[in-house]
Amino acid sequence: MKQATNKLVAGVETIGFELNRAALQARRNTKWNQYEPDVLPAFVAEMDFAVAAPIQVAIERTVRDGDYGYPLRDGKRVEAAIASAFVTRMKALYDWDVSPELVMPIADLVQGTFAPIVAFSDPGDGVILQTPNYPPFREAITTTERQLIPLAMRDDGTRHVFDLGELALAACKTARIFVLCNPQNPTGRVFRRDELLAIARFVIEHDLIVISDEIHSDLVYGGHRHIPFASLGADVAARTITLNSATKSFNIPGLRCAVLAFGSDELRARFHKRIPSRLLGGCNIIGVDATVAAWTESQPWLDAVMAHLTKARELVTQVLRAEVPDVHFHVPEATYLAWLDCSQIKQPGSAFQFFLDQARIGFSAGETFDPACEKFVRLNFATSIPILEEILDRFVRAIKQTA
Amino acid sequence: MKQATNKLVAGVETIGFELNRAALQARRNTKWNQYEPDVLPAFVAEMDFAVAAPIQVAIERTVRDGDYGYPLRDGKRVEAAIASAFVTRMKALYDWDVSPELVMPIADLVQGTFAPIVAFSDPGDGVILQTPNYPPFREAITTTERQLIPLAMRDDGTRHVFDLGELALAACKTARIFVLCNPQNPTGRVFRRDELLAIARFVIEHDLIVISDEIHSDLVYGGHRHIPFASLGADVAARTITLNSATKSFNIPGLRCAVLAFGSDELRARFHKRIPSRLLGGCNIIGVDATVAAWTESQPWLDAVMAHLTKARELVTQVLRAEVPDVHFHVPEATYLAWLDCSQIKQPGSAFQFFLDQARIGFSAGETFDPACEKFVRLNFATSIPILEEILDRFVRAIKQTA
Repeated sequence: MKQATNKLVAGVETIGFELNRAALQARRNTKWNQYEPDVLPAFVAEMDFAVAAPIQVAIERTVRDGDYGYPLRDGKRVEAAIASAFVTRMKALYDWDVSPELVMPIADLVQGTFAPIVAFSDPGDGVILQTPNYPPFREAITTTERQLIPLAMRDDGTRHVFDLGELALAACKTARIFVLCNPQNPTGRVFRRDELLAIARFVIEHDLIVISDEIHSDLVYGGHRHIPFASLGADVAARTITLNSATKSFNIPGLRCAVLAFGSDELRARFHKRIPSRLLGGCNIIGVDATVAAWTESQPWLDAVMAHLTKARELVTQVLRAEVPDVHFHVPEATYLAWLDCSQIKQPGSAFQFFLDQARIGFSAGETFDPACEKFVRLNFATSIPILEEILDRFVRAIKQTA
Repeated sequence: MKQATNKLVAGVETIGFELNRAALQARRNTKWNQYEPDVLPAFVAEMDFAVAAPIQVAIERTVRDGDYGYPLRDGKRVEAAIASAFVTRMKALYDWDVSPELVMPIADLVQGTFAPIVAFSDPGDGVILQTPNYPPFREAITTTERQLIPLAMRDDGTRHVFDLGELALAACKTARIFVLCNPQNPTGRVFRRDELLAIARFVIEHDLIVISDEIHSDLVYGGHRHIPFASLGADVAARTITLNSATKSFNIPGLRCAVLAFGSDELRARFHKRIPSRLLGGCNIIGVDATVAAWTESQPWLDAVMAHLTKARELVTQVLRAEVPDVHFHVPEATYLAWLDCSQIKQPGSAFQFFLDQARIGFSAGETFDPACEKFVRLNFATSIPILEEILDRFVRAIKQTA
């Protein structure tokens, strides 16, 4: 294996943002401190990279000045700066027109899922969620006592797909909300226009609200294209709340700050009937500065990161296909996450625990994305090539030793 | 006037945290940018001071490392670090025992008022609020379609007091919540034990929930003592949600981060029936580091600030009593805010507008604290002595010119 990967590594250009293991181990983040030091972390969705220079410059300016009071930016409330940066970016990337008045900056990303569920449904109502899916979506549905209506992502041999016809009529009757995660986590799917149009027809037919989490939209690989759900048309937008943030793609999750974009005035008004805007909290100034710098000045960094992730994805694919062909997975169309079906492991219990014990790799456990997926792990490959090589090496050896 | 104030200034020790006007005008905060450059701001409650060194050191460490991922501190979730710092501080300052499990860090302060109102009442229910009061409390009650039941703070010639007997029986029947702001903003009152016990008896008798905002509790002057409302007894705690934050007294409002402390497990459980914890968002890491450094390492800075504010308060008192005795006010027992009754101004309209136009001072407008108070302004005197002298000088001259 070493040979194969070394050859591939030769093609990887050195980019300034990759952190070496010493730098990573000095961090105080969850990724590098959750497990014992001999475990290589490949779980929580942050990247082992330094942030973009414009982000760091913006943060350092505010910190140098100790300017931590109630902030303005360019003489305006910071919410306006965030909304403006988001609207400009959506227009440039997707030719999607968003009204700045309908963009609501919020303190933190995850609350952006909880809030529309609370606003647009009642306990007992159904919420459709493609499964497997990001654990906080499951949590947002169950802790609010809504009924999770799963829509399975099925492996058609080429990719993970879904069939809306599988949703039982009874489920459709109780459903009030469709939670769409696109690009999808953990499968890495970027839904095509025809798939999104099918969802659009479905939600209009059943009069559902759509919470469209597009947090991974910056992380789409060549050959695929992200389409904001609300951009499909006015009738779709009028029932869609889009959730986005710079925290994922620009690697600043600890700084918080996100946006909810409402597809119509009426939708926003309905939301505020239940969720007064200040209930969700304001953005902190460091998160604001970082987010605006990310969205307005940091595309070159993101381009370089995507070039690196493209190589890392190739490495993962080449090694796994060559060395452990029984591990089923599809090359992700977006995200730095690979959803690995490790059903060939014969030990009882979760694949996550197996690899933690036998390979000293800390994956994300499949069962947290879907209780039925305990033989899956989610690999985060957003790290340097040497660390990724070691993860893959440990993974392959652990599997071969059980064969 | 100049002579009198100069004498007083001679007694003010030079302390490192006071910022000069050039430094303040270079800031991008609301305080120094809301008005034209010739206006001296004395409104929004932040101080014209540099933050405590331990806060700056903590922030600079995280920024230097660019460590913006999902954070841990001391190997634990950051919420535990905040809760621990808060609990330790409450025990040390007030001998108040708070269970760390009942301390809920939240992304931002103001949501801490909105959330319990939403959780513990329904539209149409009554919420008792001492008036005048901090505008967001009024907003939290009215935008959630609750009924504001005012409890007037009356000037007894010595201080502002309240009489629970004034609350009509009808109002008591619809009331579900008592919002207590102690120390009180804008009157600067620190409620005595007998006053708090009267409220305690009242809320028990009428079975009310108490939202006790104690955000100014660090800013109490000699001769007065803050008593956490929930520390009055288990029966009181069981109906009290205490709200606090380092953002006010340690001058870091833009960094956000606050805590809700529930007085009992049952109260917390009731709250979460309506407000799932993640709806309120997580704290950003800069706010976390700043808050923990404030509560655990920054008392010497706060002591120095209080010494300065004590001198500034003396200066305000001496100048106003000597020069404009018709301006009624009571020396605040806490806060760096003075609530000035300027009824002697004969012009129609608000005192705020008068002083903005005639004195080029940007006070907080009294009418935002109570519609009946348009002849009041709130003075923020947390600035350097030279700037405060100029504010007082402009204030006195504007009044004398209309006499």
